[in-house]
Amino acid sequence: MREKKQGRAVVLLSGGLDSTTVLAMARQQGYQCYCLSFSYGQRQTIELKRAQENAAFYQAERHLVLELGLDKIGGSALTEDIAVPKNTSVCQDGGAQAGEIPVTYVPGRNTIFLSYAMAWAEVVGAWDIFIGVNAMDYSGYPDCRPEYLHAFGELANLATRVGVLGGGKFVVHAPLLRMTKKEIILAGMALGVDYQKTHSCYDPNLQGLACGACDACQLRQKGFAEAGLLDPLEYQEKRGGSCD
Amino acid sequence: MREKKQGRAVVLLSGGLDSTTVLAMARQQGYQCYCLSFSYGQRQTIELKRAQENAAFYQAERHLVLELGLDKIGGSALTEDIAVPKNTSVCQDGGAQAGEIPVTYVPGRNTIFLSYAMAWAEVVGAWDIFIGVNAMDYSGYPDCRPEYLHAFGELANLATRVGVLGGGKFVVHAPLLRMTKKEIILAGMALGVDYQKTHSCYDPNLQGLACGACDACQLRQKGFAEAGLLDPLEYQEKRGGSCD
Repeated sequence: MREKKQGRAVVLLSGGLDSTTVLAMARQQGYQCYCLSFSYGQRQTIELKRAQENAAFYQAERHLVLELGLDKIGGSALTEDIAVPKNTSVCQDGGAQAGEIPVTYVPGRNTIFLSYAMAWAEVVGAWDIFIGVNAMDYSGYPDCRPEYLHAFGELANLATRVGVLGGGKFVVHAPLLRMTKKEIILAGMALGVDYQKTHSCYDPNLQGLACGACDACQLRQKGFAEAGLLDPLEYQEKRGGSCD
Repeated sequence: MREKKQGRAVVLLSGGLDSTTVLAMARQQGYQCYCLSFSYGQRQTIELKRAQENAAFYQAERHLVLELGLDKIGGSALTEDIAVPKNTSVCQDGGAQAGEIPVTYVPGRNTIFLSYAMAWAEVVGAWDIFIGVNAMDYSGYPDCRPEYLHAFGELANLATRVGVLGGGKFVVHAPLLRMTKKEIILAGMALGVDYQKTHSCYDPNLQGLACGACDACQLRQKGFAEAGLLDPLEYQEKRGGSCD
């Protein structure tokens, strides 16, 4: 049916710091980018606005926003009415205690995201999927681990036409997997990412302002502080950008 | 967080002949069933009505219907305005020519379905996922093959809490995988399935009546004929229930 086009990629784009940096990397590597975002009852619809701005800025071929039913499935502080943890010891332990999974973990989220990315990749003829997961900051999330991402790539090669007809191989790119937040920010700055137009907070206020206290805000601020840079984002509560 | 409950299962339920038979099997095996259906811009909304009836009949613990964005992704005769093939040689070759993939293949569909099933299983504490795929009738669909289903089970064990915390194992059950349509129908009849309340057609009319000519209708009619049984479904165009 549709032939695979070398140089096309589907990029999962949340509008956050990580996925925006990944989009910049994919563009710098010369990929034509098909950006995929999701609306899934998450609290932070500001993310989608940022995703749209960045897809336009990086001249994405297309930007598709899909509505998901994750809020009907529940099981997470990001989709249900469970309090988002604030001022935790995220700076010491990288986001999760050993053997614990944060309440902000959304069951199945990355698998659902990657499944849609794979489906769209098959339709537009892309071989490459980019995702901004990070094994260091989010070591408590099972679906951010290298072995998980490898398994998804293998699955994609069985799940699609290529599994029957041959002729190529899906690759899941997770360029941030083993980078610290500091390194991600430095890489993005080198590629001209405007981090004022990225959103990281799990619990923004009605105006979309980041809380400054949730795990995501703390990790972001720590990353900028360690990179010796000012975080350009406006916060409800600025915590000085450090974990001292 | 949530503990796994022995005896709970998520059952993917389309309202078709196959998935309804699978639901009957899961119930007969003593599972408490959490039935999951999808609305994805498919032409046949009658399927969802049948799914609701069967979920109620088999006393499902819950029946969740999720809206998907598959129509926005496209790439299939089932989600786009592509003609559904009629009166093909499905009776001879089991639904697909060797090395061909039918236009009714929906890219990524089973992977997206199983991803949601896995997510919901994690939330309700189920270890078992039932899906009515069949490798014999739909040999042309890459995501109906045994090696694909095995790979998804492996992925689920990495993607979820169990992958980090241990304590159990996800199993994807595909009890129809190596059964012919005739055998599926006989098994379902033995379990009391009311096949008048199952819908198989890819292209029903506005009243929800099956066309009798698409691959799905032909396979169904062939199955009943080979089982020596009358198909209780009403068709627009009855083809005598045989492939002679």
